[in-house]
Amino acid sequence: MPTITAFERSPDRGRGLARDMRVRWAFEEVGQPYEVRLVSFQAMKGAPHRARNPFGQIPTYEDGDLTLFESGAIVLHIAERHAGLLPAGADARARAITWMFAALNTVEPPIFDRSLVNILEKDEPWFEKRLQALDKSIRTRLGDLSAHLGEAEWLDGGFSAADLLMVTVLRRLQGSGLLEEFPNIAAYVARGEARPAFKRAFDAQAAVFANAPLTG
Amino acid sequence: MPTITAFERSPDRGRGLARDMRVRWAFEEVGQPYEVRLVSFQAMKGAPHRARNPFGQIPTYEDGDLTLFESGAIVLHIAERHAGLLPAGADARARAITWMFAALNTVEPPIFDRSLVNILEKDEPWFEKRLQALDKSIRTRLGDLSAHLGEAEWLDGGFSAADLLMVTVLRRLQGSGLLEEFPNIAAYVARGEARPAFKRAFDAQAAVFANAPLTG
Repeated sequence: MPTITAFERSPDRGRGLARDMRVRWAFEEVGQPYEVRLVSFQAMKGAPHRARNPFGQIPTYEDGDLTLFESGAIVLHIAERHAGLLPAGADARARAITWMFAALNTVEPPIFDRSLVNILEKDEPWFEKRLQALDKSIRTRLGDLSAHLGEAEWLDGGFSAADLLMVTVLRRLQGSGLLEEFPNIAAYVARGEARPAFKRAFDAQAAVFANAPLTG
Repeated sequence: MPTITAFERSPDRGRGLARDMRVRWAFEEVGQPYEVRLVSFQAMKGAPHRARNPFGQIPTYEDGDLTLFESGAIVLHIAERHAGLLPAGADARARAITWMFAALNTVEPPIFDRSLVNILEKDEPWFEKRLQALDKSIRTRLGDLSAHLGEAEWLDGGFSAADLLMVTVLRRLQGSGLLEEFPNIAAYVARGEARPAFKRAFDAQAAVFANAPLTG
């Protein structure tokens, strides 16, 4: 059974924003049981965890002799080995992988920056202006995504690993008011969250936080 | 023959930083000829180009009925269809793909931000502090990468698509002084640049700028 790593005590307090959520969701979609090794912030930077991921981050993936990191790569690995997360045709499969990269490389960067700025730069004199600049970048991306999506249910045909990644990226905007400006995107995120596999994954990672020690 | 898109007039003035460089280099490594359709900044945001890439960016990839975007996805597509950019074994292949995602999702974001800040925020009162914060993030990533690389020639065994992406990401730091703080990384980038396929790709994209109209 593959083993992944996750935060012993997630900074998001169990809201499913940590990147192990993507891997848990993928396992749930394809029906693959998995084990979780929880790591503290201190342990993440130690040698045993760096042997799994040289950048000292979660999630990682271990299955026999194979160790992987990067949530996008792990989700792709799962999608290639099980039915349910990539379309059968070669062209449709390549397009789904294009959208996986788009989620992580084009849509996520300004959204992730926004989270960081809200944590690290809240008291800086430039905070409001930085936030406005990021919101402008995010609105541009969301506008493009909204135009592409139109009335479609998913990014390209049926649900795929690309939708899984894109929904996890967009969920980080919940509470910002930005998703509500694009109703078809808000509905798209809700469709992802309504999937039984999402719910099982969300509950599993939320349970870790609920059971976490108060210090760690 | 596949067709890619590239800037009609690249903002980097032909230094190989635009993301079509990655795709050109991949084609050169595997010996696949390709055609290039140049697009102006205005045309990139028009409907015909958005049909190729909803985010209005370059590069895109067209081959028969298949259209892709995202440089990482295109390089992976090329690597999967030709020998030379991914190892043969399944585990080694999965690890190479992990490093492709690491290049684009873990190493590139602060490096790309640094370029943007140097262009867009040079006159802002927070410029120096922003740059220092980014340089700290970049040094952390480079330190981790340097520790992983050690005396190895490439990231994981032989040269792969992961090295191709990582070298293009790191080249964006040339001139910052940061690469020189990690001599094994500087040597790694130089090894990538010394490959004949890199040089052919670099010359091809530089020729576009040399021949570009003065306005456009």
